[in-house]
Amino acid sequence: MHQNLNASLHGIRGSFLDFIADPFYQVEQDCVRYLPDGLLILEDGYIKALGAYQELAAQYDKIPITAYPNRLILPGFVDTHIHYPQTEMIAAYGEQLLEWLNQYTFPTEAKFKDPSYARRIADCFLDELLKNGTTTALVFAAVFPESVDAFFEAADRRNLRMIAGKVMMDRNAPDYITDTAESSYEETKELIRKWHHKGRLLYAVTPRFAITSTEKQLKLAGQLLQEFPDVYLHTHLSENTKEVAFVAELFPQNQGYLDVYDQAGLVGERSVFAHGVQLTDAEFRRLSEAKAAIACCPTSNLFLGSGLFKFHQAKSPEHPVKVGLGTDIGAGTSFSLLQTANEAYKVAQLQGQSLSAFKSLYLATLGGAEALCLEDKIGNFEVGKEADLIVLDLQATPLMQLRNPHLPAQSLGQLAEAAFALTMMGDDRAIQATYIMGRLAYDRDGHRPV
Amino acid sequence: MHQNLNASLHGIRGSFLDFIADPFYQVEQDCVRYLPDGLLILEDGYIKALGAYQELAAQYDKIPITAYPNRLILPGFVDTHIHYPQTEMIAAYGEQLLEWLNQYTFPTEAKFKDPSYARRIADCFLDELLKNGTTTALVFAAVFPESVDAFFEAADRRNLRMIAGKVMMDRNAPDYITDTAESSYEETKELIRKWHHKGRLLYAVTPRFAITSTEKQLKLAGQLLQEFPDVYLHTHLSENTKEVAFVAELFPQNQGYLDVYDQAGLVGERSVFAHGVQLTDAEFRRLSEAKAAIACCPTSNLFLGSGLFKFHQAKSPEHPVKVGLGTDIGAGTSFSLLQTANEAYKVAQLQGQSLSAFKSLYLATLGGAEALCLEDKIGNFEVGKEADLIVLDLQATPLMQLRNPHLPAQSLGQLAEAAFALTMMGDDRAIQATYIMGRLAYDRDGHRPV
Repeated sequence: MHQNLNASLHGIRGSFLDFIADPFYQVEQDCVRYLPDGLLILEDGYIKALGAYQELAAQYDKIPITAYPNRLILPGFVDTHIHYPQTEMIAAYGEQLLEWLNQYTFPTEAKFKDPSYARRIADCFLDELLKNGTTTALVFAAVFPESVDAFFEAADRRNLRMIAGKVMMDRNAPDYITDTAESSYEETKELIRKWHHKGRLLYAVTPRFAITSTEKQLKLAGQLLQEFPDVYLHTHLSENTKEVAFVAELFPQNQGYLDVYDQAGLVGERSVFAHGVQLTDAEFRRLSEAKAAIACCPTSNLFLGSGLFKFHQAKSPEHPVKVGLGTDIGAGTSFSLLQTANEAYKVAQLQGQSLSAFKSLYLATLGGAEALCLEDKIGNFEVGKEADLIVLDLQATPLMQLRNPHLPAQSLGQLAEAAFALTMMGDDRAIQATYIMGRLAYDRDGHRPV
Repeated sequence: MHQNLNASLHGIRGSFLDFIADPFYQVEQDCVRYLPDGLLILEDGYIKALGAYQELAAQYDKIPITAYPNRLILPGFVDTHIHYPQTEMIAAYGEQLLEWLNQYTFPTEAKFKDPSYARRIADCFLDELLKNGTTTALVFAAVFPESVDAFFEAADRRNLRMIAGKVMMDRNAPDYITDTAESSYEETKELIRKWHHKGRLLYAVTPRFAITSTEKQLKLAGQLLQEFPDVYLHTHLSENTKEVAFVAELFPQNQGYLDVYDQAGLVGERSVFAHGVQLTDAEFRRLSEAKAAIACCPTSNLFLGSGLFKFHQAKSPEHPVKVGLGTDIGAGTSFSLLQTANEAYKVAQLQGQSLSAFKSLYLATLGGAEALCLEDKIGNFEVGKEADLIVLDLQATPLMQLRNPHLPAQSLGQLAEAAFALTMMGDDRAIQATYIMGRLAYDRDGHRPV
């Protein structure tokens, strides 16, 4: 048979879990696809087929197959909000948002003017992502174009699907870390031309937030979105109450925080707003209408004391908003989307709601892909998608082993329980391996990438 | 010199951090003792001396010294509230307190009627404690005396300073898991005689909480405290709002939840109440007056959506209450007191307060010892205390290494920052070794206990 002679064909055997619809809006079991003993066929880095091993193995009996017994294989995690220059300042003590920016963030980001420094941290950062099973992220660089080059070079070398952009900020920050409306426009334009659609890379126009951009800079950001209709917009929105009040002071003519971005033409289908903890119901409606997305960052919201994200309102059927999970390093406290799901659950519980593991894992995979308008390329195991996937070890520690003695789960009920324990107890140790475009890019136990 | 000939003398060299006073009430730097290059001398399992290596080494130049370069040595952690029979049900999905008890907890605890099962889990549990650097804990067993025997046998074999007790519960729970007021009294009495002060073990009279005990059972618990004045009282108090309302229904004649225990004679200096999330100001005052303690369990309070512990009120100078940290496994989500400190910080932040790492580490060591009236025996490195100590690796992961490149800290400021990063990013991997009464009882890298 033809396909069996094709050397680029490769199979992976194990238990497979992915999502084919949004469990916030449909019966959960209709959204989950689970194959306790499945076979995934990869060709040239893309998904060619997925099925029960017993059904598919005969068709592909001459291709190499990597077996992961008692492992759960998921699409790679998608982190919808993270700052790579803040990798080294994770866990900086004692402040809430605005003070934290001035005291820790700006001085740290200033170092990223130095390309060699930026390259070193970009490498550490991407190593951490892969180690935590994150294969796609929407990333803030620093204000310096050099920091964007360093990041994209490192991501391109690893063939990662990454979205990033240069921070635009022309006020309310120290001189050493600001640009001007004009320079940010020109530099961003050049970076878009250089990097957008280079390999798997994509660009996001990235004003930090309304506080550190003049109206002029925001309008120029809007102009960039018009000139390059398929780039992204990535910024922060309504994280804490002081910030919201400050925005109201700076933009007295606007109808609230989101409206500041809206008036600049920044609210559209490819716009991703980090946090949204303090959003009003009208703002949720507007985001829904515009098909814009929110990156929900629970470890960060708790760390900075910003507040509790309203999952219930964001995912209400009346005005559904696309939501992904974000670690928000360095205000977030873990690179792991499992740990992020742990705290997302707690944020929901504090509001009397339950966030199931299937919902969390949907947000971390297909939901994140949808938030980034990448659901045609990544997020689940549909045929034709890019084969970024992760191999999870549900018995990664003695305690997880005690909690999950029987693998693989034989029913959706068992799987729901095992997946929940994974999101509560799992961290980078639960990531056995990470594959990028069908190639092993990280292996916990140190096996060499092939 | 005489001491140099004594074979039981042994030294440990490294950086030492402990607390000599409560940083909630005194200037932080006056409460912290830090020796960047220290030497701790142990004799027969007790602390004989602690000083700068340069000053002390000459006096003890013939004794064996174990050196831990670039490691931070702390007194062992004290977990003031944990359920050993819930080890295997950590991360059970989707409920708040009362439903969670019925759906998950009672069926799991029922298994502990079987002594061999109880022994197996007691071993797993104590292994987890040591691996996480916890050397003393106040522990709920199950309702069955067999479960207490299994626990104490396992703890005694490891020579651990542990406090535990049989659960007393005679209503509002399934028959298979309840006792009666009389049987709980008799069984507890027998267990006290058998275990209290055996080796390092101590007994806690342990009614589960007001909801599952009749007034009669609570009064008999009070009688036990009178008959055995130095045993402990360990129970739950004011965890969530529904529970508080249910207690008010069950005890209409009482002035609130704490008063139920008070009227039964259960509120005293050796009483430890888990949670206290919903306490009123008057109740904080009463706890302060009685010198009773609260076990604050942030990962559990978030997991069950119970609410935010009011550190500020509990530790107010007007009515200071003794507070320790508790993991509250299995409603808590981690055995690690570092992870518990991480979420304690977030709980404080959500209330606009900052909890420094020194405060957290105080709570996890000397504060916990004080909450358990054990400050004369454990909690810091005072001469004469029992030598339970832990060796921490502040560079346990590549990310922690990036965050903490320079060790050891050379100033209290540097130490505060490194300690904070430790409490935010650390978990069991940061515990390099655990010593019990001067003997190596756990080593992360698998070196054999000596």
